[in-house]
Amino acid sequence: MDKPQIGVVGMAVMGKNLALNIESRGFTVAIYNRTASKTETVAKEHADKKLVPSYTIEDFVKSLEKPRRIIMMVKAGAGTDAVIAQLLPLLDKGDVLIDGGNTFFEDTMRRNAELDKSGINFIGMGVSGGELGALEGPSMMPGGQKEAYDLVAPILEKMAAKAEDGEPCVTYIGPNGAGHYVKMVHNGIEYGDMELISESYNLLRNLVGLSVDEIAAIFNDWKQGELSSYLIDITADILTRKDDLGSDKPIVDVIMDAAGNKGTGKWSSQSALELGVPQSVITESVYARYISAMKDERVAASKVLPKPVGKVEFDKDTVVEMIRKALYFSKLMSYAQGFEQMRVASEHYDWNLQYGELAKIWREGCIIRAKFLQNITDAFEKQPDLSNLLLDDYFKDIARNYQEAVRDLVGLAVKAGVPVPGFSGAISYYDSYRSEVLPANLIQAQRDYFGAHTYARTDREGIFHYSWYDEQ
Amino acid sequence: MDKPQIGVVGMAVMGKNLALNIESRGFTVAIYNRTASKTETVAKEHADKKLVPSYTIEDFVKSLEKPRRIIMMVKAGAGTDAVIAQLLPLLDKGDVLIDGGNTFFEDTMRRNAELDKSGINFIGMGVSGGELGALEGPSMMPGGQKEAYDLVAPILEKMAAKAEDGEPCVTYIGPNGAGHYVKMVHNGIEYGDMELISESYNLLRNLVGLSVDEIAAIFNDWKQGELSSYLIDITADILTRKDDLGSDKPIVDVIMDAAGNKGTGKWSSQSALELGVPQSVITESVYARYISAMKDERVAASKVLPKPVGKVEFDKDTVVEMIRKALYFSKLMSYAQGFEQMRVASEHYDWNLQYGELAKIWREGCIIRAKFLQNITDAFEKQPDLSNLLLDDYFKDIARNYQEAVRDLVGLAVKAGVPVPGFSGAISYYDSYRSEVLPANLIQAQRDYFGAHTYARTDREGIFHYSWYDEQ
Repeated sequence: MDKPQIGVVGMAVMGKNLALNIESRGFTVAIYNRTASKTETVAKEHADKKLVPSYTIEDFVKSLEKPRRIIMMVKAGAGTDAVIAQLLPLLDKGDVLIDGGNTFFEDTMRRNAELDKSGINFIGMGVSGGELGALEGPSMMPGGQKEAYDLVAPILEKMAAKAEDGEPCVTYIGPNGAGHYVKMVHNGIEYGDMELISESYNLLRNLVGLSVDEIAAIFNDWKQGELSSYLIDITADILTRKDDLGSDKPIVDVIMDAAGNKGTGKWSSQSALELGVPQSVITESVYARYISAMKDERVAASKVLPKPVGKVEFDKDTVVEMIRKALYFSKLMSYAQGFEQMRVASEHYDWNLQYGELAKIWREGCIIRAKFLQNITDAFEKQPDLSNLLLDDYFKDIARNYQEAVRDLVGLAVKAGVPVPGFSGAISYYDSYRSEVLPANLIQAQRDYFGAHTYARTDREGIFHYSWYDEQ
Repeated sequence: MDKPQIGVVGMAVMGKNLALNIESRGFTVAIYNRTASKTETVAKEHADKKLVPSYTIEDFVKSLEKPRRIIMMVKAGAGTDAVIAQLLPLLDKGDVLIDGGNTFFEDTMRRNAELDKSGINFIGMGVSGGELGALEGPSMMPGGQKEAYDLVAPILEKMAAKAEDGEPCVTYIGPNGAGHYVKMVHNGIEYGDMELISESYNLLRNLVGLSVDEIAAIFNDWKQGELSSYLIDITADILTRKDDLGSDKPIVDVIMDAAGNKGTGKWSSQSALELGVPQSVITESVYARYISAMKDERVAASKVLPKPVGKVEFDKDTVVEMIRKALYFSKLMSYAQGFEQMRVASEHYDWNLQYGELAKIWREGCIIRAKFLQNITDAFEKQPDLSNLLLDDYFKDIARNYQEAVRDLVGLAVKAGVPVPGFSGAISYYDSYRSEVLPANLIQAQRDYFGAHTYARTDREGIFHYSWYDEQ
C-alpha cells in the first residue's frame, strides 16, 4: 500500500464516510479516532479498502506523506481546539490542516491566524450533503491559504459531487473564514427553502384542503419544473411514506411539529444583522422554527386566541398554481438576500468571493442543490459586479410575472389565518427594495426629535438638525 | 457647600444634563471630563449650581463623600474600559461605579465580575429619555449588586421621571448585566414602535392618498385614544413642521428616507436569535432601516422592478381605522415578543426580572412611554408567571377584536405594493403562536431524511429515525 496521501481525524459517520469517499477515488487514507475502538471497527468493516488505521495521534501523523494533509471531522468548538493542540507539535511547516466541521467562521479566522504563525496551513471547509453526500460526493467550500488549497485540490476535486457538465462541486472560496462563512449562508438559505416548502405544504393542506397524498402528487409535479431541487424531491418522497410503527397514517402525521436546529441559520441571521444586510426570509425561517418548538405554549394558546372568522373563497387549481409561484418567487428573494449578504461580507472581510462560482458548486452534492442555481451562475457571469440578483433579467422577469400571484396568495393566507412568515417576508422585501421612497424620513425625524441624531436632506448635501423644541 | 454625594464623569450632553438633573434635586455633584475645558465650561455656565468641578481624576475621586458614587457617561466600549482603569486604583471597597452608557450587556457582565474581585460595586444602568429626559427626569434601568443599588437608590429615585401615580421610573432590575439587557430590549421595542408608525404613515400617504396635514390630524386624533404615547405625540408634531431652510414643504418631505441606527435594535435581535425567542417585529424593523439605508440601490431598482398592476378599492375612512387597529395590534405583538425575550433571558442569565415593574418604570421618562404600559403592569400583577402577554385578557380581547382589520389591511397593502414588514410580521406571529399544529413536522422529516437528525412523535415518547433509504 502507498503511504497515505491524506488522513482523516474523527470516525463518526461524517468522518468515516469522507474517508471511504476519498479511498474510493484511488487514494490511501490514514484514519484516527480519539477512541481507538472506533478506528478499529471502521478498519475491520472495510478491511479490503486502502485505509491505514492508527491508534495514537503520533502514529497517525507519522504515517502520512509530506506535506501532510489532514481533514478533521470532529465536534465543532472545543473539540476542534483540542485536536489542533494535539496535532500542532507533531506537524511541520507547510502541512495542511482542514477543519470540515460546521464551525463558526470567526473561530476559523482565529485558528487560521494562530496556526499561520507556526507555518501551518489551516483550511476551514464547509461540507454539505449530509451522510450520503459525504460518502458519494459532497459540495465543499474550502477557505484558507490559496497555496494550501492547491495542495489538496486534486483530492477534493475527485471527492466532490459532479455537476451535470462534469465540473466538481468544490472551488477555492477565499482566505481564512471564507469557506465556513459561505457554508453558513448556504445553511441559512437551506432554512429558507425548507420554511417556504413547509408554508406551501401547510397552505395546500389547511387553506386548499388537500390530503397528504394529493399534496405528494403536487410536489411530484412541481419537481419536474423550475422548482426542481433536492429538497422538493425529498418532500415529494416524504409525503408518500407511511408510519413505520404500524398505524396507516402518513409519517408526517405522526411526526411532532417542533423543529430543531443546529445553529447555522441563527448565525447567518446574526451576521446579516451585524453587517447591515436585510435578510428577512432566512430570519423568519429561524423564528418559525423557534415558534414551532414552543409546542406546549401553542397548544395552550390555540384554546384561547381566536381564529379569524372571515370566509375566503377561491378556485382550488388557481390557488395551487399561486402557491407554486409564491414558493418560487420567495425562494428567489431569499437567494437574493443570501447573495447580498455574501457580497457585503466579502467586502467587509476582504475575501474576494466569486459569486458565480459559489452558485456553481451548489448545483450538486449539497442540500440546496437545484436546477435554478445555474441561473445565478449565469447572472454573475453576465455581470460579475451585479449588486443584487433582483436586478438580473431572469430574476426580474420572475418577479414581474409572479408578483400578482404572491400578493393574492398572501392576502388569502392572512385572511384565512394560515401563517406565512416566509412568503410575507419575501414580498415585503421585494416591495421595500423596489421603493424609491420609503417612510424612513419619518424615522429620521423622530430620531432627531428625541435624540438629536441629525438627518440628511434630499435636496442638498450635509447633516442637519431641526430645532424641534424652539417656539414656533 | 456639602461634600458631593455623587460624581459624574463625562460632560457631553447626556452627562451634563444628568449632573444638572441630580443637582436640581438638592444634591451637590462632582463633575469631571477628560478634556478639562469642557468641565470648566459646564462649571462656568452653571456657576450658581452646586457643581464641584475637578480637573484631574484624582481630585475628582478625592472630592467625593464615601462610599463614593460615580456615574460614568462616556462613549460605550473602549472608552468605558479606559475610565474604569483610571478610576480603579483610586477607589475603595464598597464604592459604587455606575455605567450609564448604552453598553452591550455582556460587557457589563464582564466588568461587574472583574470589579467585584476588588470589592467595587458596578452598576450597568440603562438611561432612556434622550437629552431632555436626562435633564428633566429619565427612566432608568440599573442592574448590579442589590446592596449597591440601595446606596444610590435615594438619588436615582429623585432624578427619575415620575409616573402619574407619583412612582419614580427607576427600580432595581437585577444582577450584573440585567439593567443594560432590559434597556436593550426597550430600544428594540422602540425600533418596533417607530417602524409600525412609519408603516402607518406610509399607508395613509401612499395607499389612502392623504396629505401630510391630513395625516398630522389623524395622529393628533389617535394620540387621544389607546395609542396615546410619546412617539405618537412627536409624530403628530413632526408632521405639522415646515422645512426650516426656506421651502414651504413639510419638513418630512425634505428629510432623506435613509434611517440610521446605533446598534441596540440589532443587539436585541441578535440576542433573541441566540436565546431561541421569535422576535419578528423588532427584527423586521431593524431590516427595514437597513433597506432604507440602501437608498441608491433602491432608486436604481425602482426603475427596473415592476410595481403591482392590480387595482385596490376601499373606503377611505374604513381604511384609516383599519390602520389604527393594525398599528395597535402590531404594537401588542411586538411587546409580547419583547417581554417573552426578557422572560427567557431572565431564566437563562438567572436575573429574576420583575416584568410588571419593568412596564411600570417605562410609563414615563423613556422614549416608549405610553398609557398602554399600565395594561402590561396589570397583566403581570394579576398573573406574575404569565408566559406570554397574549394570554392576558386585555391583549386577548384586542387580538380578537382587531385581527380582522389587520388581515384586511395587510391584504390591501400587499396587493397595492406598499411594504408592511412590521404588520406582516405581527400577524404571522399571532397566527403561528395560536396554531396548535404548524408544518414543522415536514421540516423535521426533511432534517431526518438528509441529516439523520431524528424526530419526536405525537403519539409516544422517545426519539425516532425513519429508514428513508431502505427499499420500500
